[in-house]
Amino acid sequence: MQNSSARTPSRSRTTMTEYVLPTHANALGNVFGGQILAWMDIGAAICAQRHCSTIAVTAGIDNLAFEQPIQVGHVVRIDAWVTATFRTSIEVAVIVYGENPISTEEWVCVRAFLSFVAVDDAGHPVAVPALVLETEEERQQEQEAHERRAYRLHQRQHNRHRLTSSQRS
Amino acid sequence: MQNSSARTPSRSRTTMTEYVLPTHANALGNVFGGQILAWMDIGAAICAQRHCSTIAVTAGIDNLAFEQPIQVGHVVRIDAWVTATFRTSIEVAVIVYGENPISTEEWVCVRAFLSFVAVDDAGHPVAVPALVLETEEERQQEQEAHERRAYRLHQRQHNRHRLTSSQRS
Amino acid sequence: MQNSSARTPSRSRTTMTEYVLPTHANALGNVFGGQILAWMDIGAAICAQRHCSTIAVTAGIDNLAFEQPIQVGHVVRIDAWVTATFRTSIEVAVIVYGENPISTEEWVCVRAFLSFVAVDDAGHPVAVPALVLETEEERQQEQEAHERRAYRLHQRQHNRHRLTSSQRS
Amino acid sequence: MQNSSARTPSRSRTTMTEYVLPTHANALGNVFGGQILAWMDIGAAICAQRHCSTIAVTAGIDNLAFEQPIQVGHVVRIDAWVTATFRTSIEVAVIVYGENPISTEEWVCVRAFLSFVAVDDAGHPVAVPALVLETEEERQQEQEAHERRAYRLHQRQHNRHRLTSSQRS
Amino acid sequence: MQNSSARTPSRSRTTMTEYVLPTHANALGNVFGGQILAWMDIGAAICAQRHCSTIAVTAGIDNLAFEQPIQVGHVVRIDAWVTATFRTSIEVAVIVYGENPISTEEWVCVRAFLSFVAVDDAGHPVAVPALVLETEEERQQEQEAHERRAYRLHQRQHNRHRLTSSQRS
Amino acid sequence: MQNSSARTPSRSRTTMTEYVLPTHANALGNVFGGQILAWMDIGAAICAQRHCSTIAVTAGIDNLAFEQPIQVGHVVRIDAWVTATFRTSIEVAVIVYGENPISTEEWVCVRAFLSFVAVDDAGHPVAVPALVLETEEERQQEQEAHERRAYRLHQRQHNRHRLTSSQRS
Repeated sequence: MQNSSARTPSRSRTTMTEYVLPTHANALGNVFGGQILAWMDIGAAICAQRHCSTIAVTAGIDNLAFEQPIQVGHVVRIDAWVTATFRTSIEVAVIVYGENPISTEEWVCVRAFLSFVAVDDAGHPVAVPALVLETEEERQQEQEAHERRAYRLHQRQHNRHRLTSSQRS
Repeated sequence: MQNSSARTPSRSRTTMTEYVLPTHANALGNVFGGQILAWMDIGAAICAQRHCSTIAVTAGIDNLAFEQPIQVGHVVRIDAWVTATFRTSIEVAVIVYGENPISTEEWVCVRAFLSFVAVDDAGHPVAVPALVLETEEERQQEQEAHERRAYRLHQRQHNRHRLTSSQRS
Repeated sequence: MQNSSARTPSRSRTTMTEYVLPTHANALGNVFGGQILAWMDIGAAICAQRHCSTIAVTAGIDNLAFEQPIQVGHVVRIDAWVTATFRTSIEVAVIVYGENPISTEEWVCVRAFLSFVAVDDAGHPVAVPALVLETEEERQQEQEAHERRAYRLHQRQHNRHRLTSSQRS
Repeated sequence: MQNSSARTPSRSRTTMTEYVLPTHANALGNVFGGQILAWMDIGAAICAQRHCSTIAVTAGIDNLAFEQPIQVGHVVRIDAWVTATFRTSIEVAVIVYGENPISTEEWVCVRAFLSFVAVDDAGHPVAVPALVLETEEERQQEQEAHERRAYRLHQRQHNRHRLTSSQRS
Repeated sequence: MQNSSARTPSRSRTTMTEYVLPTHANALGNVFGGQILAWMDIGAAICAQRHCSTIAVTAGIDNLAFEQPIQVGHVVRIDAWVTATFRTSIEVAVIVYGENPISTEEWVCVRAFLSFVAVDDAGHPVAVPALVLETEEERQQEQEAHERRAYRLHQRQHNRHRLTSSQRS
Repeated sequence: MQNSSARTPSRSRTTMTEYVLPTHANALGNVFGGQILAWMDIGAAICAQRHCSTIAVTAGIDNLAFEQPIQVGHVVRIDAWVTATFRTSIEVAVIVYGENPISTEEWVCVRAFLSFVAVDDAGHPVAVPALVLETEEERQQEQEAHERRAYRLHQRQHNRHRLTSSQRS
């Protein structure tokens, strides 16, 4: 059964490259945070689909931090790989790099963990193929992904309560 | 000094409305997660700028969860308000609602907390005006924002270590 | 019968907020007139659909004047409400405001009246729910909407004759 | 003085062609009204700049009517020409045609009159070169343009009063 | 049989006009080559569809040279016409002009030959209507189109071999 | 002198990944040729800038052939590398692949050679760093690049004559 056969992180690892045009930037000449988020979501979704062999829809984001800006004329490089799989969902780690193509200098712009749900053509969740881990580092990342998921599930329930009552005020 | 005068959350509260066109949707007819993130970032940035009276650049996102999808032909409504201010940064809560304009049915699509840094025209951080809280609920949200910030600072340091080493493998 | 139940203007009133990016502006740094028209049409269409509970297609525009420009880095706020309903069409008033989010200064950019036709999924006109007016001002706006419609119908017939012959020259 | 030399309508007449992609269309497969308005504004602005030899900013629209829709896969053709010049402003007539490129069938989608103000690089109004009319039809269009302007000036003053008071309610 | 009736080049000749916005330009203020290519492809595809009375998909480009740049604030004018027809394909010549709408100066930006395949709704190639040539120049262009096609077919086979092996290295 | 130091093809090799959205596709659900050309130009320009350490502007395209279409929901992967350098210009080979992320099937969509001119901030041509070739295959690709350039220069002169006279007819 092809869909449930185990797969390594390197099989679905995804690299995207984008060139920053004036249309992507704010008044300071830096890429908008929202544009970076949109590219990051596409790169991670391609990675998730390559692993799952199904459509993958974004379920959430944890621990996203913008570290250094990227400017007009620079190149954005996105690296995404699977860290852990759950029953019908998957966690993808993403690092967004900025690169000056003239000097070839490179720096980290954003690091984040995105989770996706694998769905069929009707949008119903389906089982995700297991992840085959090959290195000690991959096993450690998987363990941390399980810890993040536990914290995430706890926080979401909490936020839902808070933000629902908030909007009524 | 205008820039440091205290301000209430309601003074900068921001509402955005967008219409979902085919260009925003995936093969299931649902808005891409990345498009929602891009709209959410703009709405929260306007809110942050209204409070800070300066340019505000996205610093991070915590606890973002997609709960229900929004489809082509539906309306996206974004509600953003300030929950807490720090020395040169600010936390904004955002709820993204879907609305069927035919039936006027409405549902929550995403809830998230975004943090922004207030910067001057050269991109250097500047002081953020204090937040004047008026209700018990606002005070509770501010306390939770401080807790999230502590967890966030801890996690970012941790992730930076992990993801940097990961990419070398 | 839900579709024909009477509804007030406040039930469908619509507010949109947009942030002006470099991609929206001309060589003077001002938003293109055409971009404002596109946003205005979407805001008014959402308002019309909320009132009609059907798809609403743009039928025409009267008396549109650009008063003050809006620049890159400013916020565009659009306020749209129903002024009058006819058998299968509806008039929506729109005011587009510019706002400087740093100073919170605000000004009127454009005022216009747009008319829409309510249509079913096959594109055929359908009846529009009646408008329930509650204030003297709403009643006066409705009366003026009827006057504009009479002038409009007269003018369109006239223009059609003129412009058709013109293009043959 | 080059800028004030008289010019004929044919010297600045402008034709634009656009192909309707899925991204331009609503749920019925028809081009959004707002997209047509945006293209129409660009075509008329090019025409105005060709006549004025300056930047031209949109001042207003009169008597715009959507007559027939244009669908995905069809071609949009825009024809724009100067009808009258005033001291620092200009009126441009626009007809938007739909065309099925397979059958080569063609129909009128929109007719409208747009007015523009000629401005220098600082955005200040400057004098518009006179219009040299060569045919009886051109002279009649110019006379009607003067009538529309009188009505327009009267209406704008009126609307400003109405809509300002309205938004306060 | 309408689809196979012979047609002249002037019947399908296509003119497009675009205004160069900041979003189309690179750091030097010139339109990106890729944006020009995208507009050129659309203009040539409309021309091909007008001749073929079917959908036309891009098959290839020969001999494309950028001669002069076009800047923000300038106008792009595209002129496309059929030079030759083959069994299920067609060659279209395209010249892209830049124009300064203030000075009305005009220059050639790009010249190219594009080939298209006529396809039915299922994407299968269909016969192209014959081309009726009326001038000596048209006949010479057709002859050269046949020479280009022979060179093209020879080169493509050659490139396929080279580039396939290259990527394996 | 950094700018003139010799560099290998692998140092500047560039990979781009894009996800095909409905907004990129025609009525058959296939990516528009013009969209592929725009992505290809950006990928090759990044490659050229990485080699030249200057801005690189597109000079021309030779021998471009669309072999297989790419559909909505598929992934576009672009591979670009330098084949030869001249005094102030450079040739880049590009292969565009389609990939079905569900089945991970992959195919060639387009192969082409693009040439770029290295320019300084004022747009004037500057010297290109020499290319260090390491394999027999690279040396053969470079020789063919020189042959293409000779044919290209001959053809462009020829086309310029033809197409200029053509537009006057």
